[in-house]
Amino acid sequence: MKTDIEIAQEATLQPIQDIVAKLDIPSDILEPYGTNKAKLDFTKLDMDHKNLGKLILVTAITPTPAGEGKTTTSIGLADGLSKIGKKVAVALREPSLGPVFGIKGGAAGGGYAQVVPMEDINLHFTGDFHAISAATNLIAALLDNHIHHGNALDIDVNRVVWRRVVDMNDRQLRNVVDGLGRRADGVPREDGFDITVASEVMAAFCLSNSLADLKEKLGKMIVAYTRKDNSPVTVNDIKAAGATTALLKDAIKPNVVQTLEGTPAFVHGGPFANIAHGCNSIIATKLAMNYADYTITEGGFGADLGAEKFLDIVCRQAEIKPNAVVIVATIRALKMHGGVAKKDLGNGENVEALRKGMPNLLRHIDNIQNVFGLPAVVAINKFPTDTEAEVKALEEECEKVGVKVVLADHFANGGEGAKELAEAVVEAADKESNFKYAYDVNASIEEKIEALVTKIYRGKGVEFTPAAKKKIKQFTEQGFGNLPICMAKTQYSFSDDQTALGAPEDFSITIRDLTVSAGAGFIVALTGDIMKMPGLPKEPASNRIDVDDKGNITGLF
Amino acid sequence: MKTDIEIAQEATLQPIQDIVAKLDIPSDILEPYGTNKAKLDFTKLDMDHKNLGKLILVTAITPTPAGEGKTTTSIGLADGLSKIGKKVAVALREPSLGPVFGIKGGAAGGGYAQVVPMEDINLHFTGDFHAISAATNLIAALLDNHIHHGNALDIDVNRVVWRRVVDMNDRQLRNVVDGLGRRADGVPREDGFDITVASEVMAAFCLSNSLADLKEKLGKMIVAYTRKDNSPVTVNDIKAAGATTALLKDAIKPNVVQTLEGTPAFVHGGPFANIAHGCNSIIATKLAMNYADYTITEGGFGADLGAEKFLDIVCRQAEIKPNAVVIVATIRALKMHGGVAKKDLGNGENVEALRKGMPNLLRHIDNIQNVFGLPAVVAINKFPTDTEAEVKALEEECEKVGVKVVLADHFANGGEGAKELAEAVVEAADKESNFKYAYDVNASIEEKIEALVTKIYRGKGVEFTPAAKKKIKQFTEQGFGNLPICMAKTQYSFSDDQTALGAPEDFSITIRDLTVSAGAGFIVALTGDIMKMPGLPKEPASNRIDVDDKGNITGLF
Repeated sequence: MKTDIEIAQEATLQPIQDIVAKLDIPSDILEPYGTNKAKLDFTKLDMDHKNLGKLILVTAITPTPAGEGKTTTSIGLADGLSKIGKKVAVALREPSLGPVFGIKGGAAGGGYAQVVPMEDINLHFTGDFHAISAATNLIAALLDNHIHHGNALDIDVNRVVWRRVVDMNDRQLRNVVDGLGRRADGVPREDGFDITVASEVMAAFCLSNSLADLKEKLGKMIVAYTRKDNSPVTVNDIKAAGATTALLKDAIKPNVVQTLEGTPAFVHGGPFANIAHGCNSIIATKLAMNYADYTITEGGFGADLGAEKFLDIVCRQAEIKPNAVVIVATIRALKMHGGVAKKDLGNGENVEALRKGMPNLLRHIDNIQNVFGLPAVVAINKFPTDTEAEVKALEEECEKVGVKVVLADHFANGGEGAKELAEAVVEAADKESNFKYAYDVNASIEEKIEALVTKIYRGKGVEFTPAAKKKIKQFTEQGFGNLPICMAKTQYSFSDDQTALGAPEDFSITIRDLTVSAGAGFIVALTGDIMKMPGLPKEPASNRIDVDDKGNITGLF
Repeated sequence: MKTDIEIAQEATLQPIQDIVAKLDIPSDILEPYGTNKAKLDFTKLDMDHKNLGKLILVTAITPTPAGEGKTTTSIGLADGLSKIGKKVAVALREPSLGPVFGIKGGAAGGGYAQVVPMEDINLHFTGDFHAISAATNLIAALLDNHIHHGNALDIDVNRVVWRRVVDMNDRQLRNVVDGLGRRADGVPREDGFDITVASEVMAAFCLSNSLADLKEKLGKMIVAYTRKDNSPVTVNDIKAAGATTALLKDAIKPNVVQTLEGTPAFVHGGPFANIAHGCNSIIATKLAMNYADYTITEGGFGADLGAEKFLDIVCRQAEIKPNAVVIVATIRALKMHGGVAKKDLGNGENVEALRKGMPNLLRHIDNIQNVFGLPAVVAINKFPTDTEAEVKALEEECEKVGVKVVLADHFANGGEGAKELAEAVVEAADKESNFKYAYDVNASIEEKIEALVTKIYRGKGVEFTPAAKKKIKQFTEQGFGNLPICMAKTQYSFSDDQTALGAPEDFSITIRDLTVSAGAGFIVALTGDIMKMPGLPKEPASNRIDVDDKGNITGLF
């Protein structure tokens, strides 16, 4: 089979004006970026957010190295809905530049389920992440400038929590000492850089409902604490909210591109799924819902993290809710949950391992159906090695809990391969639902975390370290107690032990520390160390990337 | 009078398609960025660079705090040429984001001589500087990654010369130690950040004639030296040229915008004028010259630095030459060169001071006319405080050397105020010229520097420190001896003493150190410390910048 970039470069793209016309979006709000990308100036639209189309959330089983294909399924499903005559849009995250040059390569779908122009989307796209980097780094420069020029706010240089960012995998910047040199060169302090997608600006950007909302959120972000009484110093305190928002005035406009089959795709924003909520921007999703009959969006990681955050954080903030949830799985991945090692996946049929891995999928289904009260559909991303008996076993298990299973081969066949999935999703989205959040946001921080651990992960309880307890007390006193929880836990297990595949039981989760994203509007509960700045491998993907005299790129997979 | 942003926001912009149509540029190479900005895909043009229009270089007297107005004059002159019926384009540098938030504010002309959309040009514009930052930082990440993964190239961590960049005034990053933490977090070393415009990628970008040329230049850039024998390690050695060029494939396409009066403006690239050459991209200038009858471009700083570098570095590399040179001065600035302090400029007429300051202008005129052999015109940027007697004295002095002086008030009156200047420029550009470089590029490094000091600055000679001598020997041995010289000297004086205004004599210049920009293609001769990362003032301009719910920006001057 051809590589992703070969397939993408062979595609004939439709003018972007024709793409948005499919959704009856007024063409005068289109701001083209080249011929195949555009931004939509939502500030010129009179959206009442009342007569919204249906929203479909795509999530997945607990991820394994076998791969699930959540993004390809989101794109394939959108193309499948187009094929059966629906007015549809897909809303996705923008890829980060860092991983493109690392191991991962491109991240705009794959095979015949891609968004295009693939190279542009994977490189600078419309500059949103650069704007977010600049906004983050302007705040940092203004903060250090304030300290340098007399520190009237009494900022403790040992309690600066704001970090600069680059959109690059660069381990060398994780821990630095800056402000070295002469007196004119700043104040020496320990510091460090994160990758742009890990920034709070990114999270706040994606959780904003308007430009005014963004400015308010940015202003509330905490950059440091004071020497005297450890009280928070915010972006508003250092007078940076206006200029920072000005840097984001264009970035906040949703980007529109197309799938290989010409379905409108809103690719906008891309926060981390651990220390943040891992979904594309609310503005893009709601804009799509104002015009499309079906909007497909996806959560990060597995359903215990990505779907939960989408439902408890994003939906609460955006005042929306999905009409159905698609849970993506593969036979291969379920066999890994059933104990097969990755290297043994090629050893042929193994119905027993599949059945042994099923409890992972079933627990996610149960969460969607019974905790959140939403209709679920299981999409099996088809692999050539899947056997009939394996598929049948899977269907049997799902039938028991009343969930439809659909095989989809959009990767090889595009929308045509996802028509059956599309039909199933339409049916599910027509069902009555009884959506509820996993926790009451006004409960205590401890109670909210306990709800997630016992109701979603199915652990027996939570332990808080003394450091975590201290932070809970502090945040509650500072008035952050009623924020939703953003759990930073391994994505590879329901538990906090990444080797515990399947559906582990009898575990407890230890909360080691908490941080507050006061602007984005959530409290991060950390179960371990989270890497916020990736590194590059010994042979980085960038080694093979090249460009010819006409600007054609090769080696970007 | 209204502020720059008020004037800019009141303007009715013409569709960018109409702007390029004025130059008969095929519309299918236009890549729009919003409605009022576009990039031109020059790779699709069949430019023979043979039947080129006339090129006008705008330069200035030695800058003073009184201000000269080189960019407003370039824009005003272009509008003036439009007014008298010429097919004209102006090619300018892009402003850096850093100073926008510092003291300076916007940098896209001023008054009624501006390029628009002013806010966009001053903020992210089309993302070129972000792409250049990403390219520079990718090289840094790959370099440190190479060292981290075994350092097969034997790079000396004490001789890494490549620095990361941010497009921000951030003194805190001037000197850092990075790679701290655990073994997985890189290799500790001294390091530092520059502002993006000071990067060699920026210089190489602006000096490239094509994408292939850019890739070749990027590959030759030196990032470090080896432990064993101090031999250079290049971007090619760390396999970064392809991916870095891929990051710049769109940035390299010239941006087109418009003046307030609808004259096509190519705003593209913006290297520092001290450690680099300080002019917009060669690709933009040559593209303009292929379509316009008159192309206006400007050099950085005064004519001793900016014009000299344009003529000796850019013209040599691009194989072009100007048909006339405009030297911009103000009565106020000449009075400062004649000994008046800035605070005393408001004290009324002072013909004596003006005459005393004239030698500064006359030396620049002599350089243009007699060293470089080019026709010159003096443009006096009109101020309300200028008196008739002062103007008359200035005209008298210029008449003696056969140069026409024209008063221009484009700042207050746009192109209408620069029609007389336009007529004078047309006349000058019709003259025969006998262009020659200030030095033979194949002379020794010492000889080339001596030529600049004695012929252009009119010093009596050059002294080289032992460190400089060592570098000259090293660079000559390494094969860099035949590169042109980029002098990093104070812009405030012909000498290396920034307090020596007017036309100092009997001084010698001390070259303290040299560096090689092997990719951009010049040797930098340093006469003192050059600040490559500015800081922010106590009350930064960002404090007053704000944006409303619709994205309208205020406080950007």
